[in-house]
Amino acid sequence: MKSSRLRVAVAQIDTTVGDFPGNSEKIVAFGRRAESAGADLVLFPELAVSGYPPRDLVERRSFLDEAERATDRIARATGSATWLYGAPLRNRARTGRNVFNAAVAARAGRRVGEYHKRLLPTYDVFDEGRYFEPGRGPGLVLRIKGWRVGVTICEDIWNDKTFWKRPLYAPDPVAELAALDLDLHVNVSASPYTLGKDRLRRRMMGRIARRTKVPLVSCNLVGGNDGLVFDGASAAFDETGRVVGSSRSFEEDFWTIDLPGGRGPKPPVEDDVAGLRRALVLALSDYAAKCGFREAVLGVSGGIDSAVTAALAAEALGAEKVLGVAMPGPYSSKGSLRDARDLAKRLGIRLIEIPIGPVFDAYRGVLGPAFGPGDCVPAEENLQARIRGAILMGLSNRFGYLVLSTGNKSEIAVGYCTLYGDMAGGYALISDIPKTLVYELARRINRERETIPARTIAKAPSAELRPNQKDSDTLPPYAILDPLIEALVDRSLPVDAAAERAKASKRLAREIARRIDRNEYKRRQMPPGPKVTAKAFGEGRRYPIAHRFRV
Amino acid sequence: MKSSRLRVAVAQIDTTVGDFPGNSEKIVAFGRRAESAGADLVLFPELAVSGYPPRDLVERRSFLDEAERATDRIARATGSATWLYGAPLRNRARTGRNVFNAAVAARAGRRVGEYHKRLLPTYDVFDEGRYFEPGRGPGLVLRIKGWRVGVTICEDIWNDKTFWKRPLYAPDPVAELAALDLDLHVNVSASPYTLGKDRLRRRMMGRIARRTKVPLVSCNLVGGNDGLVFDGASAAFDETGRVVGSSRSFEEDFWTIDLPGGRGPKPPVEDDVAGLRRALVLALSDYAAKCGFREAVLGVSGGIDSAVTAALAAEALGAEKVLGVAMPGPYSSKGSLRDARDLAKRLGIRLIEIPIGPVFDAYRGVLGPAFGPGDCVPAEENLQARIRGAILMGLSNRFGYLVLSTGNKSEIAVGYCTLYGDMAGGYALISDIPKTLVYELARRINRERETIPARTIAKAPSAELRPNQKDSDTLPPYAILDPLIEALVDRSLPVDAAAERAKASKRLAREIARRIDRNEYKRRQMPPGPKVTAKAFGEGRRYPIAHRFRV
Repeated sequence: MKSSRLRVAVAQIDTTVGDFPGNSEKIVAFGRRAESAGADLVLFPELAVSGYPPRDLVERRSFLDEAERATDRIARATGSATWLYGAPLRNRARTGRNVFNAAVAARAGRRVGEYHKRLLPTYDVFDEGRYFEPGRGPGLVLRIKGWRVGVTICEDIWNDKTFWKRPLYAPDPVAELAALDLDLHVNVSASPYTLGKDRLRRRMMGRIARRTKVPLVSCNLVGGNDGLVFDGASAAFDETGRVVGSSRSFEEDFWTIDLPGGRGPKPPVEDDVAGLRRALVLALSDYAAKCGFREAVLGVSGGIDSAVTAALAAEALGAEKVLGVAMPGPYSSKGSLRDARDLAKRLGIRLIEIPIGPVFDAYRGVLGPAFGPGDCVPAEENLQARIRGAILMGLSNRFGYLVLSTGNKSEIAVGYCTLYGDMAGGYALISDIPKTLVYELARRINRERETIPARTIAKAPSAELRPNQKDSDTLPPYAILDPLIEALVDRSLPVDAAAERAKASKRLAREIARRIDRNEYKRRQMPPGPKVTAKAFGEGRRYPIAHRFRV
Repeated sequence: MKSSRLRVAVAQIDTTVGDFPGNSEKIVAFGRRAESAGADLVLFPELAVSGYPPRDLVERRSFLDEAERATDRIARATGSATWLYGAPLRNRARTGRNVFNAAVAARAGRRVGEYHKRLLPTYDVFDEGRYFEPGRGPGLVLRIKGWRVGVTICEDIWNDKTFWKRPLYAPDPVAELAALDLDLHVNVSASPYTLGKDRLRRRMMGRIARRTKVPLVSCNLVGGNDGLVFDGASAAFDETGRVVGSSRSFEEDFWTIDLPGGRGPKPPVEDDVAGLRRALVLALSDYAAKCGFREAVLGVSGGIDSAVTAALAAEALGAEKVLGVAMPGPYSSKGSLRDARDLAKRLGIRLIEIPIGPVFDAYRGVLGPAFGPGDCVPAEENLQARIRGAILMGLSNRFGYLVLSTGNKSEIAVGYCTLYGDMAGGYALISDIPKTLVYELARRINRERETIPARTIAKAPSAELRPNQKDSDTLPPYAILDPLIEALVDRSLPVDAAAERAKASKRLAREIARRIDRNEYKRRQMPPGPKVTAKAFGEGRRYPIAHRFRV
């Protein structure tokens, strides 16, 4: 018989890929906390045991062995409550892939159920079809205090045929599960952040709860993993689709909710730019921590990109852990150095100055005979950028700093950047932020106080690699370029449609599309950076270099 | 009624991704040639219309539009023979992915059949599950002169349940097709080269022909596309599984065979190292041609890696199109410069000399205050490599050369290389060749005449970045290291099993496994290079950087 009350705990934790001891310890700690709080059911994120995404590590036998052992160890720690936690588990059948993306239910010291994710996202940044054998329907229904609790994993609920115009998969696990007469639907996930996705996710989940007339509680991963940042934002919906509880975003969180009728916490929802800022800070602090870096170094030019990167780095790591390097060159303006110094003072970061002139002269000396007469401007512009890259890498090699590259999405899209120069680094923090959004971020950071010098925000952007150079010499205004990139890259629109959407000429749209294509070789070699838009360069956008498709 | 004779033409062509005009023209030219030769059926490779692999280009509407138009254009050019050619075609159903990996049959000016690939490889370098909707069985049977001709595409035949220990897919398209009473089975493919794969492919196809008692004719792609090189090696098998005709490998080829009982050409099969050499030459010449490069530049150190790379580049592009750059530094030996000059003379390539000393001194001058006292050796070693990288990139920027990086798989595996230094370049030609195999290649190249100086082959390998440095100061002997890498990377074996396989100590195996993991961040930023082993670094090996899995 169904008990009148079920207390569900949501343990929104930050896991580390491959850290079986650390992840297990965290799961057990939160599980015990939930039991102390009287919870009947505790939810953890997708693949909590192994971290997400484990990628090709799941092809290692020893990785799967560790996952099995940790899964059992955690099960043995369970007490009165049912713990539901994700783990990569072996497929013991004689055909198909080796591994399931599983959710394990355990209670009173032993495993009591196992669910295999059915819909495996294989697009954009996701490669789950590469690794996992899909589960077969109709899914797992746990019995907890008489409640019938149906389990899904992340993508399983992203195929609602009444919500999407064109569902990607034939099966609809939600509809099949709903037919099983549920009292509660729980979804454990690792759904990465992108700008505004939280709203879509809530709208979709609310719709599912309403349509199936079953309350829905989700537990999403939080934390940064290479190019992905997970926002958490776990939430509970009642059977009318109303949000009745939710986690704080971009941090670990724990809460409980009593069903039916109870309420969980409802932290205020931040606006998009505030959320973006927190996403970037989390991405960087987790990347550094999970790779073992404690300090970062970056070139500080006096411009907006390095200023925003430095400000975010100071937030993520602490100002005292960030070293700025001003590297004035032959075409740097006086104002640039002044603005760089001003920024460092405002942020409280250390700044050192290393002039590139002597190295540049030495390069010109040894390359002169080979370069010969003729136009050396592009080669010499790149040289200046590469000297700066080598200086930062030198400091990294000498002191173990993480090098932050400071390129934005707009310049990376059209190749207005130097491979091994300003593109050099271990983490490309704002590589998925279009220039216009970099400005928005700067203004948002300055709302509290003028952290970024007003002059840096006000002046016209310049690479300062030749006399009086301005970005606008070579690029259309960012207010036109950014919507074009969004149309061509994020939406994969044809040139004509992109031009129309961005209110640009077809000629310009075609030129930009070609520049984007032509510069794929540079992006292939860029460091990882956090994806925050619908389509980031990097893992989620896989283009050939040698191709002749002409738009 | 089945006619007594069917003439099948195999058009093993080299396509370019996205080059719809060029690929179409080539298909039509070979199709007409086949008709002139009296063929009844002409086979072209998988995705011949678009090139393979088109990757995320298939997400562009305009790309699919072009593919449809080219497919129709080609169909209109057909005459008396049935042409069978691959193309990415739209899925017009209301669920599922947008695109099929299709084979189109056309005859007498119109399309007469369409088959959709059922098994979509989604592992290693393959991402077909990301792009394509799988076809549904039981497949296409063409009627040509009364013959019943069954069609499969590449992976469809790689799931024979009697051949593989653990089939990856539940369906077996070959078994289903065989049940349809065929007279002939044709397979169009884009099956990339790896060392020794040709033998496996033939053995497997022979087995299928024998098991189904149906002759099998395959048409495989040839050519290089970024990190993949396709060897062609198309072949015909009679119903007993015997090879009765085959294409030349690593080049375009055209032949016909009369069924039943006829014979096609049977070019001699090359040994593995000879095949490897041709694979690398084709990979580079196609990469350069398809990207629009006519000349290449590389650093020539006097060592074995740059010597082999230079020799292959001279074969691929012509000696007069290759520029070697000797960049002696403070720790270069006299012998190195002599060996570099000797190599250039033997190859007939141009050599220039650019000393790095003045630039190195300038860097030390500006970095000295920041470096301070203490151990600057690793930082300064990397600086020397980065100066060389910047010089090559400078020449590339100035003259439009393709920069060839010269790192081998062994050093890239353990991170014995400098990011933005010796790793810099547009194409990493020998990045998937273990050091011991580099030596085998060198000896093979020298079989004809001493192209590579004997001294270069004989001397102990050294990076020459500090006084009297030898690789063996930091690395185990390559005869041990290479089998360890093979066990850990190519086979994903656990440390203990890897140690046993490579006859190394567990301690060494563990240390090497950790070095491989720790250096993932460098490999993430390396240029593409041709995959030639079972597991190449790059697109086919997707590892997290920030992870804590400890072997």
